[in-house]
Amino acid sequence: MRLNETETTFMEYVKKMEAFKEALQLIYWDLRTGAPKKGVKQRSQVIGTLSDEYYQMSISEEMAAFIAKLSGQKEELPELVQKTLEECKTIYDRNKKIPPNEYKEYVILQTEAENVWEEAREKSDFAMFKPYLEKLVDFNKKFIEYWGYKGNKYDTLLDLYEPGVTVETVDKEFETLKGAIAPLIQKINESGNKQATDFLYQPFPKEKQREFSLKILEQMGYDLGAGRLDETIHPFATGLNPGDVRITTRYYDNDWRMAVFGTIHEGGHALYEQNISEELIGTPLCRGTSMGIHESQSLFYENILARDKSFWEYNLELLRKYAGGILDHIRLDEFYRAINKAEPSLIRIESDNLTYSLHIIIRYEIEKGLFNNEINVEDLPDIWNDKYEQYLGIRPKNDAEGVLQDVHWAAGNFGYFPSYALGYMYAAQIKNAMVREITEYDGLLKSGNLKPIKEWLTKHIHRYGKTKKPLELIKEATGEGLSAKYLTDYLVKKYSAIYNL
Amino acid sequence: MRLNETETTFMEYVKKMEAFKEALQLIYWDLRTGAPKKGVKQRSQVIGTLSDEYYQMSISEEMAAFIAKLSGQKEELPELVQKTLEECKTIYDRNKKIPPNEYKEYVILQTEAENVWEEAREKSDFAMFKPYLEKLVDFNKKFIEYWGYKGNKYDTLLDLYEPGVTVETVDKEFETLKGAIAPLIQKINESGNKQATDFLYQPFPKEKQREFSLKILEQMGYDLGAGRLDETIHPFATGLNPGDVRITTRYYDNDWRMAVFGTIHEGGHALYEQNISEELIGTPLCRGTSMGIHESQSLFYENILARDKSFWEYNLELLRKYAGGILDHIRLDEFYRAINKAEPSLIRIESDNLTYSLHIIIRYEIEKGLFNNEINVEDLPDIWNDKYEQYLGIRPKNDAEGVLQDVHWAAGNFGYFPSYALGYMYAAQIKNAMVREITEYDGLLKSGNLKPIKEWLTKHIHRYGKTKKPLELIKEATGEGLSAKYLTDYLVKKYSAIYNL
Repeated sequence: MRLNETETTFMEYVKKMEAFKEALQLIYWDLRTGAPKKGVKQRSQVIGTLSDEYYQMSISEEMAAFIAKLSGQKEELPELVQKTLEECKTIYDRNKKIPPNEYKEYVILQTEAENVWEEAREKSDFAMFKPYLEKLVDFNKKFIEYWGYKGNKYDTLLDLYEPGVTVETVDKEFETLKGAIAPLIQKINESGNKQATDFLYQPFPKEKQREFSLKILEQMGYDLGAGRLDETIHPFATGLNPGDVRITTRYYDNDWRMAVFGTIHEGGHALYEQNISEELIGTPLCRGTSMGIHESQSLFYENILARDKSFWEYNLELLRKYAGGILDHIRLDEFYRAINKAEPSLIRIESDNLTYSLHIIIRYEIEKGLFNNEINVEDLPDIWNDKYEQYLGIRPKNDAEGVLQDVHWAAGNFGYFPSYALGYMYAAQIKNAMVREITEYDGLLKSGNLKPIKEWLTKHIHRYGKTKKPLELIKEATGEGLSAKYLTDYLVKKYSAIYNL
Repeated sequence: MRLNETETTFMEYVKKMEAFKEALQLIYWDLRTGAPKKGVKQRSQVIGTLSDEYYQMSISEEMAAFIAKLSGQKEELPELVQKTLEECKTIYDRNKKIPPNEYKEYVILQTEAENVWEEAREKSDFAMFKPYLEKLVDFNKKFIEYWGYKGNKYDTLLDLYEPGVTVETVDKEFETLKGAIAPLIQKINESGNKQATDFLYQPFPKEKQREFSLKILEQMGYDLGAGRLDETIHPFATGLNPGDVRITTRYYDNDWRMAVFGTIHEGGHALYEQNISEELIGTPLCRGTSMGIHESQSLFYENILARDKSFWEYNLELLRKYAGGILDHIRLDEFYRAINKAEPSLIRIESDNLTYSLHIIIRYEIEKGLFNNEINVEDLPDIWNDKYEQYLGIRPKNDAEGVLQDVHWAAGNFGYFPSYALGYMYAAQIKNAMVREITEYDGLLKSGNLKPIKEWLTKHIHRYGKTKKPLELIKEATGEGLSAKYLTDYLVKKYSAIYNL
């Protein structure tokens, strides 16, 4: 790639921004994995300085000049420069359109709101959180006006997390999903079939859980020379650069699934970040293209691959070696049914792989209503509870297990929730495309050879980083646009078999 | 503290520089404690960006303007601003006086020289390293001319690590030290007395070494809520801010002393950084005032306090609890004599508490000769070996165990070595002043109550950070200027008793 002078200066400028970002990511990782509490106050100053430096560079006159100059010759730019420019312009426009004082106010509000939400959730007191949530919604309504919108106002928020995906698409696919899952849940309930899961809740030494988790990561193709596994209360994955992608997990003494499936989930995210093409390093394109596509990678590994009977045909024996006897007398079939138990519940993050999407759809419908002025904040608890009763057949007894359960709104993250269900749909669709090419998919799982699967994902997803938009990527990887069909087919087939429907 | 506009802007500017520095320190800590290898290349880019940002700010026109404006009204400035200004001016002058292209060349040379040195040491081939060392010395000679000097040229280099301390002072004190240690070593050799140390080299589980080390850190008053203990090949302490001062240590299966005394050494450094006055946070004054004073804190704890019989009167019983039986039959007296064994050896970092200073004095005399054009690089191996024979009575068989053993010169750190022996002298002098006030010093050690000792050090040393220069600090803490007398008295008394002289 030969660059002219402006292009080179621009790419150097961007590299500097990315350096600040990588330093920030390391600081956040450190804060979450064991930084001494008493140093946090001063560390926030450091975060403030670096974030501000990044922010100022993203809206500087220098950046404006780069955008103006390079946009004029866009067609002649090398692809990498062109895509980098597009990304910078998106950020520039987004940051520049909000008046600085409003942005500051909003940042302060976010911190306050999160603190109040925490207390409100503890006390199950929605009234306490309501004024903050109202302000957060109002701010975002203003932002939508600043940023502009074509069709649905909520599209503008969706675009923050899933660029190019609109209400029109999501409505259609979520309807399909709802239409398949709701009756399936009802059939399961009516069948009266239940599976034994008691044997899952037995002591399993933490160190052994860790060793097994590392074995599975290795199988998946996670490169420990370019990563590490630590322990945190809230598991996460963070890609500082493709050579340094760290994951964390959480160990429960009496439920090894938390650590194992959690590690697999984060491992899926990590494979994405580890396998982004090297040439993207130092540009804003060197990360996952969207929340939804990122989630497709973690959910493919956690829900689809690692909850497949073939996967455990190979790994149950291995798990037994670490489990100290507690699983020795459990048959593969029993085991498989137990880890795939489906039962409506109230808390999203504790829900199963079948009902999960309904939790997301409820949140999506509410957000869409809020930003199209069809729902008021004060009515949220009732609307929430009604929807749970309607879709899942159970009703929260209080707001702590209802509308107050998630942090997202308190943090001002509207438009984020749909990514989870979009990710699940992408995952099923991707798997369908994958097995068309990797016809021995089942055999690979049965022999613990997951490398070809990672390679397929790298070839079709990972390596592109942010150079392709989500829908473009899905189209190219699977041959068609987003479709809920593959997830519904997968769920219906799988759960009908498990519950003998 | 009320500040006017310029003062406030200046302090904000400085805070930003310090934020970059703290981020850099965290990155270095991370690289040494477990960052994935494959991410290092990109991490160097991040380091480059942040270092450059800091460097540019230190010599910017803005900084020049602050210095010009505030220096004019120096007397009216609040003390904190005044001291900060002085520190910034020192750095400004130092960085500004070296032509940028020479500085760049020098940085590249440092990296190359370190790589060549590593290979040369392995092959014990001084000739290989010689041209690099010559260039490093020449560069530093040029720097001395740029920076200027009054008396001895070597003073300018000493000033980098021990501001205000000159050849005149060091010569005098090192002569005293040499005059006391050399004959003492000779007497020990002639006495033929030896102590048994075999029992020290026995298996001691790493996890138990760690637990015991943490107990001692706790006794010392190291705040684990403002720090953490990790494992590295080369132990170190790093103060990111007073609320986050991390230490590392190294575990040897068959020699627990490495971890325990190493942790105590780094713990001494850490106490210094943890107890710097809060008001200095975010300024360049929020660190130890010099290498020598820093070393005085680590050496006081490691060599003086933790090798005192009274200390082990309390702690030997505790150590036995972790040692799994290997020390059960060892009497306190035997133990005390074993951990204080003195015997001339060739490698500085493996040497004992008595002969250590001679290793330093040899290096000091050579450096002084080099920069006053009395010694040529090509003659170093012979001069080195002659001095070892003269002072320690043993002669290196090759350059690997002679002139090539230390990294300091390869890294261009001339003027650094004296700090180690200065630190030891400060430590003995400080202890002498301390026991004048804390008359129950011995009793405190015997009862494991080390808090009053830490408090004394905080009151007289720690809290001042870099607001007082080393000699000013020592004068105020001990009532007199630097004097080798206390260290020689301490060594003569202690080793005469141990070796029944």
